[in-house]
Amino acid sequence: MNNEDIFAFGLGLDTRNSQDEVIEIMYTVFQVNPNEQVSEILTSITPQTPDHSIFFNLSEENQKTFISMLAEKNEIELQTTVSQLVNTNRPITVCVIKEDSPPLSVPEAFLKLHLLSSRLIRPHKINIDRIFGILRNIAWTNQGPIDLEDLAKRRLMARASGKHLSVDSVDKFPKMADYIVPSGIRIANSARVRLGAFLGEGTTIMHEGFVNFNAGTDGPAMIEGRISAGVMIGANSDLGGGCSTMGTLSGGGKEIISVGKNCLIGANAGIGIPLGDRCVIEAGLYVTAGTKLTTIDVNTNVNAQVKARELAGKDDLLFRRNSISGAVECLINSQSAEIQLNAELHNND
Amino acid sequence: MNNEDIFAFGLGLDTRNSQDEVIEIMYTVFQVNPNEQVSEILTSITPQTPDHSIFFNLSEENQKTFISMLAEKNEIELQTTVSQLVNTNRPITVCVIKEDSPPLSVPEAFLKLHLLSSRLIRPHKINIDRIFGILRNIAWTNQGPIDLEDLAKRRLMARASGKHLSVDSVDKFPKMADYIVPSGIRIANSARVRLGAFLGEGTTIMHEGFVNFNAGTDGPAMIEGRISAGVMIGANSDLGGGCSTMGTLSGGGKEIISVGKNCLIGANAGIGIPLGDRCVIEAGLYVTAGTKLTTIDVNTNVNAQVKARELAGKDDLLFRRNSISGAVECLINSQSAEIQLNAELHNND
Amino acid sequence: MNNEDIFAFGLGLDTRNSQDEVIEIMYTVFQVNPNEQVSEILTSITPQTPDHSIFFNLSEENQKTFISMLAEKNEIELQTTVSQLVNTNRPITVCVIKEDSPPLSVPEAFLKLHLLSSRLIRPHKINIDRIFGILRNIAWTNQGPIDLEDLAKRRLMARASGKHLSVDSVDKFPKMADYIVPSGIRIANSARVRLGAFLGEGTTIMHEGFVNFNAGTDGPAMIEGRISAGVMIGANSDLGGGCSTMGTLSGGGKEIISVGKNCLIGANAGIGIPLGDRCVIEAGLYVTAGTKLTTIDVNTNVNAQVKARELAGKDDLLFRRNSISGAVECLINSQSAEIQLNAELHNND
Repeated sequence: MNNEDIFAFGLGLDTRNSQDEVIEIMYTVFQVNPNEQVSEILTSITPQTPDHSIFFNLSEENQKTFISMLAEKNEIELQTTVSQLVNTNRPITVCVIKEDSPPLSVPEAFLKLHLLSSRLIRPHKINIDRIFGILRNIAWTNQGPIDLEDLAKRRLMARASGKHLSVDSVDKFPKMADYIVPSGIRIANSARVRLGAFLGEGTTIMHEGFVNFNAGTDGPAMIEGRISAGVMIGANSDLGGGCSTMGTLSGGGKEIISVGKNCLIGANAGIGIPLGDRCVIEAGLYVTAGTKLTTIDVNTNVNAQVKARELAGKDDLLFRRNSISGAVECLINSQSAEIQLNAELHNND
Repeated sequence: MNNEDIFAFGLGLDTRNSQDEVIEIMYTVFQVNPNEQVSEILTSITPQTPDHSIFFNLSEENQKTFISMLAEKNEIELQTTVSQLVNTNRPITVCVIKEDSPPLSVPEAFLKLHLLSSRLIRPHKINIDRIFGILRNIAWTNQGPIDLEDLAKRRLMARASGKHLSVDSVDKFPKMADYIVPSGIRIANSARVRLGAFLGEGTTIMHEGFVNFNAGTDGPAMIEGRISAGVMIGANSDLGGGCSTMGTLSGGGKEIISVGKNCLIGANAGIGIPLGDRCVIEAGLYVTAGTKLTTIDVNTNVNAQVKARELAGKDDLLFRRNSISGAVECLINSQSAEIQLNAELHNND
Repeated sequence: MNNEDIFAFGLGLDTRNSQDEVIEIMYTVFQVNPNEQVSEILTSITPQTPDHSIFFNLSEENQKTFISMLAEKNEIELQTTVSQLVNTNRPITVCVIKEDSPPLSVPEAFLKLHLLSSRLIRPHKINIDRIFGILRNIAWTNQGPIDLEDLAKRRLMARASGKHLSVDSVDKFPKMADYIVPSGIRIANSARVRLGAFLGEGTTIMHEGFVNFNAGTDGPAMIEGRISAGVMIGANSDLGGGCSTMGTLSGGGKEIISVGKNCLIGANAGIGIPLGDRCVIEAGLYVTAGTKLTTIDVNTNVNAQVKARELAGKDDLLFRRNSISGAVECLINSQSAEIQLNAELHNND
């Protein structure tokens, strides 16, 4: 294998179904854009040059070779983490991605999701097109991932031996916290954060919060609402309980929703347009792209009627529904848009 | 036992509390309206004719008799599944329901919930009246179901042996996925789908989705909102994140809510009336039966004021709140009601 | 130690991290305001007089002394529960709180949360100021609580031994049901009720319900919405699916929200003011303190425009948004505010 163009690699332990197909993999060692000497070492243990990506079992011989080469090149940290993996005495799977194109295998897809959740790559900066077609729908259980074909048998076997097989989800994506817990975060109910979510330092995901893959927060952030696939939330923003951000996958069209810095989306509110910085959506108000609203410019006294999509990405807006007239209004350049996060709550030590 | 009138039967492994009462049962073999020869075999191993239903332990002798009779009658599939159960070497419980009347025992109630979740019977087509009074409130844990009386002791025993007893819920209904995962579905957080839910082929229940017992989808469907007890959702409909369907148990009166085909209920919206086909509820709008609204007929230009309940079950309606006037409006015969589900998302292989 | 002023004590089994620091504790024996003879016994086994609170390991010798002293003083129930704990043969941690001031240690904080969830003390009647600063952010897993520092290693160790480490949450508070399940309650998804919640007899927390610490219900209650930190719900009230109560921690200011008896907050609705008895919030309506609304007095025919905060705590109000005019209205002395809970659903046996 030519060592130029190694985009990313990972080493981990996989799960296979009864047909010996890889259905999942937990990486404990992974990097993006490895340096030249690591790339060379990887190349020397990779069985063939991949067009795009490759995954393979690391033979016991190559495990030793890999570790001694890392030691030789003084790659101490990598040597340590690889050694920990080797010491488990389990078969090790390696995935090498040469080129960041749509993932073609389960190990490649899982590696990319690991890179996102480890904050090595930001959402939208990595190609995960058609990942739904690559990932398998499997049962995530208290006994680990199980292929749906094998589930009924495993369930009966568990009962037969006096154990309980609890199926936590039947999905293509596992929960992030079973693989990666980045620093400085809290997740009150980890079932609601998918692997592939990107949670910035200082992010709290409360019980009603949700984060899809390829989506997340810059942090710090207090998230009690739903961050749909593709949506990013800026620093010091607060998503109120049960609030909604429209995703691109279902119902939200092609425009990517985002929320700027220092924003507040009220409880049970929602947005179908991107927000700039210091914006507020009143609790309970859903602003879709097509919502016609009355703008109120507090500086110029000029009012107008516009569709919400014309305000996409603008700063310092406050959206509310006038509780006397019923009209949706947008106050422009509002000072009230300043949001202070509660410092004590955000200390995620 | 007379073999006519066998409505359903099941064989499974039960859980008992410290008083040896059955508190739960997982069936691995069950049928509705068994054929004549299966009915005859069942009759021969049932200790007495039930008025209505009966459950009993299948003695080792009868296990052998049952299997050999099935072999004799060439009921190969049944013979296989019964044999798998017998091979666990655990006590086997059989439940035979002669007549579909309100369940009178825990095994009968659980069997009916299995029939629903296995798609053998549709919601509302089986009698589960007063099931709340029959099911016991128990702790569902990572060590299986535990009677509340026994919980504190079991918790201490677990710690004493260096283990952790995690109580996932304290409820009368378990989560469906611990018993049955029908084909072609995804459930992102299985804590939110109760045993007794009916999920049609091609249904995805996202993290914010919820399905109660005796409720569900015809499928395909993308469910990110709540399907209350008794509610059915038609094919190719989409329930947006956090949306609500009023149930009959709590607050929704006696009218059964349903949603037709090709409908979209927007995020954080809600309905208190049944919808026909191709209806849309705008994100964030809650339409109760008593909501007064202005109809706008795009074909005839005739407008009127009606209560939402007068539009119950009608097709091709779009409900929205006018964001200038604040009035709730209903557009009739709207072409915009056409919903396309995302095909890639709905491939639940 | 002087035995006057013992506010509370507990005995339990703790979890320590790899630095031998207590990160969590499950109490199985605890009391508020112990009687004089129990206080004396406690004093005699406590190593030093605490200013405020103290925790310590109960030596094997003191375990025997404690039990024999309890027997001598005829404290039979206490003797039994302490003996059960001693019989686990695990190290026992004792916490004694002399004075109800802000908690200073993990064992003290956990003891106070146990007192709340056991209904020994009501929310707001115990000092838990700055508890966020005392509790540690840890991983709550199917193998028990794990310090975040130790998590990656434990995860790899689990896989190496063919097991699965499932991380259920990364939070400062554990879920209540892993410690305490008070009588007469149901919790459909226990991930949504934090230790420190107070659930009155007859409370059902449905899948969409949520209860924070220092918050809860007097019971009976049907909770399908979110009870924020500090919020209490009166008897026979019903919180509809996905409804929101503003907390004091995030966005709700300093006023403590509460809900009186026989109230109904509709699905997807919300409140930012305290409610008196027999109040109703229409489904989908969010009433914040600043909401301007039109009052309609059905007795006097007098109408007025007020801010919602002026109606804080008043009885017999019905809040709705007029679906013709879009104005938020408040009907005063409305008879329609009477709510009947479904008796069958509320039988939590």
